[in-house]
Amino acid sequence: MRNELDHFMKEAELDALLVRGPAQHNAAMTYFTGVRHITKGYLLKKVDHDPIIYVQNMEREEAAASGLKTRSSDDFDYSGRMKTADGNLNIANAIMIAEILKNHAVSGRMAVYGRMNSEITWGTYQALEDLYPSIEIVGENELDTVLGRARETKDQHEVERIRAMGKTTTAVVADVAGFLTSHEAKDGVLVDRNGQPVTIGELKKKIDLWLAMRGAENPKGAIFAAGRDAGIPHSAGQDDQPIPIGVPIIFDIFPCEAGGGYFYDFTRTWCLGYAPDEVVELYEDVIDVYNKVYNSLKTETLCRDYQIETCNLFEQKGHASVLTDESITEGYVHGLAHGVGLDVHEAPWFQHTETNQSVLKAGSVITFEPGLYYPEQGMGVRIEDTVWMRPDGSPEVLAEFPKDLVLKVPGV
Amino acid sequence: MRNELDHFMKEAELDALLVRGPAQHNAAMTYFTGVRHITKGYLLKKVDHDPIIYVQNMEREEAAASGLKTRSSDDFDYSGRMKTADGNLNIANAIMIAEILKNHAVSGRMAVYGRMNSEITWGTYQALEDLYPSIEIVGENELDTVLGRARETKDQHEVERIRAMGKTTTAVVADVAGFLTSHEAKDGVLVDRNGQPVTIGELKKKIDLWLAMRGAENPKGAIFAAGRDAGIPHSAGQDDQPIPIGVPIIFDIFPCEAGGGYFYDFTRTWCLGYAPDEVVELYEDVIDVYNKVYNSLKTETLCRDYQIETCNLFEQKGHASVLTDESITEGYVHGLAHGVGLDVHEAPWFQHTETNQSVLKAGSVITFEPGLYYPEQGMGVRIEDTVWMRPDGSPEVLAEFPKDLVLKVPGV
Repeated sequence: MRNELDHFMKEAELDALLVRGPAQHNAAMTYFTGVRHITKGYLLKKVDHDPIIYVQNMEREEAAASGLKTRSSDDFDYSGRMKTADGNLNIANAIMIAEILKNHAVSGRMAVYGRMNSEITWGTYQALEDLYPSIEIVGENELDTVLGRARETKDQHEVERIRAMGKTTTAVVADVAGFLTSHEAKDGVLVDRNGQPVTIGELKKKIDLWLAMRGAENPKGAIFAAGRDAGIPHSAGQDDQPIPIGVPIIFDIFPCEAGGGYFYDFTRTWCLGYAPDEVVELYEDVIDVYNKVYNSLKTETLCRDYQIETCNLFEQKGHASVLTDESITEGYVHGLAHGVGLDVHEAPWFQHTETNQSVLKAGSVITFEPGLYYPEQGMGVRIEDTVWMRPDGSPEVLAEFPKDLVLKVPGV
Repeated sequence: MRNELDHFMKEAELDALLVRGPAQHNAAMTYFTGVRHITKGYLLKKVDHDPIIYVQNMEREEAAASGLKTRSSDDFDYSGRMKTADGNLNIANAIMIAEILKNHAVSGRMAVYGRMNSEITWGTYQALEDLYPSIEIVGENELDTVLGRARETKDQHEVERIRAMGKTTTAVVADVAGFLTSHEAKDGVLVDRNGQPVTIGELKKKIDLWLAMRGAENPKGAIFAAGRDAGIPHSAGQDDQPIPIGVPIIFDIFPCEAGGGYFYDFTRTWCLGYAPDEVVELYEDVIDVYNKVYNSLKTETLCRDYQIETCNLFEQKGHASVLTDESITEGYVHGLAHGVGLDVHEAPWFQHTETNQSVLKAGSVITFEPGLYYPEQGMGVRIEDTVWMRPDGSPEVLAEFPKDLVLKVPGV
């Protein structure tokens, strides 16, 4: 949590954190500022000091509204720096950062954060190392950063924001179910009042619209993948295809608060009209593993153990899993879970690898998403909820929604 | 343009480009892949070779749909690499990149691209330098990258996509104008049918909705800033405030194609009901400078000259400008223009600084946005269109829209 940041900094022997970039769709910055119309911020956090943010004059009021200490980056003679840097903005920005670090007497180890173009990160910090040798710039392991450790457990306010996104998400899922079940089946596909097939692309536009109506944003798009596409976990589905009857459809939706705030992540697998026996079997295997592993979740345990448990349970049912072969494309081919917050994928991590030492803590918010995939048989099933690990050590699904496989449609 | 990439690579003595990250809201990747549901791609482009992309097995079909040569990043023994890297994913990924570079016999200078968390970029490439010393990793000047030079001029297909976003944008601007003019004024603010003030926040939600209805996305939020807020160029406006009558409102909207495609950038300044004399004067100064500088635009000229021309014209009218003092907060306080494409800010650049050697080329798509700001007097005016520099060397506004200052509302 936020109030542990200084503790984690000391643990990792970091003297400072530097966060760059906008305050929208940039989790490291938004964690400090909230969602704001700041396009270029430089946030410095010294250990045991309040963070301070440098922004352009024309963004100073936006920055001040965050409650942070605010300074102007326009005080650092842009033209002069650009001349010294021979027009190279990376170097000119490194000159400014060096001045800021000097003004705040920063030395030692400094971690760098913020979603930036790679050429900027690499170019600026290479220049900064030369300009300001009294700091060591640290590129922490992305799976275990100091800021990530703070963000890994959510305070009550954050949990309530994610829960609210969950309510929004499941409300839109109900809109989608309502849309599907109010259309008729004809010749194996869903049709509109004129008898024309409804396409996946049309439905996806409505999903974006329904999310916007509820004040959410869908920056990564939803997955609505039918049949063989459902057998490939990250296949998003094909816009020009009709929506088929009696074929498994994986609907995975992961919107966030407008401007790039907290995410929710949710999946259901539906068959319209009826489900073939082999799909029902797959579905029952997934539900069974979902229930067994969910009921075993408790805090202060290793996250990797749940992935291993899931793999073992699926293998006992005769499915291949990534535990035995990481490159499989049939069976249980992905991870069980990941943290959710200002990023849709964040700590804690659930890879089965021995090096993964992520611990499931009270305050963690994670996805929970077992699935089975058989692309060549035209099927896949995944069931996913977002789960909060409560202070008492037990899990709670933040937005409940029925897990039924079959949605009834007229005409079947 | 795209077909100049090898030429620009040779000019900059680059042997390879490496682009990382998702294929959504990540311009460098999207330039090659289009908007796709790819979360983690590694795209390698050797000079005089076709680009090739490495993705996870479960994203292989999404990647293949781009038409690019596709390989699996799951072939690089994740667990083994993680063990070697002692659990540090940056190092494990550097091991994979080194293998990819070796397989493709890459050596020499390699530029890196892609919007990534800073700790990933810095950590991975520090490790890669050690692991694969036969390449030099280049962090190009963000104002003048090889990929940026290619993207700086648009082919006809790109121009038509930006034009279509322009039509969408101005259609939503017309929706907003229609919404405002269909409400009544009462006690100096706009009210609904129940006599309750309409807030800026309510309107902004509708803007997001109207954009979603037309298939666009608004990842950076719109600016709807009235009075003193209009006097601060990047103030986004305050959600809880009512919409005032007779006060200048800057409405700046910059949506993109869903999933992170091409942007459009557009601003109008409106006064509801009537405009005070001092706002009319400010508006006329901006329109006059807009027209004069717009009519002087032609290709194969230095972009900075237009910023200097704009500063001089505003100074002749008695306004301060950034040409004389970069840290001013009243007068003409920002740049005239910037390129627009897969990023809302990209090359060419219009800073007045001597080091800025950006040339306005045929195929450039730029904003054009003179403005004047007097926050302490509660006013600001900006007029902005997105402009294509045609093959014949002349400018064309991609989506025309009236520039009227006053919008009539009932009750004034």
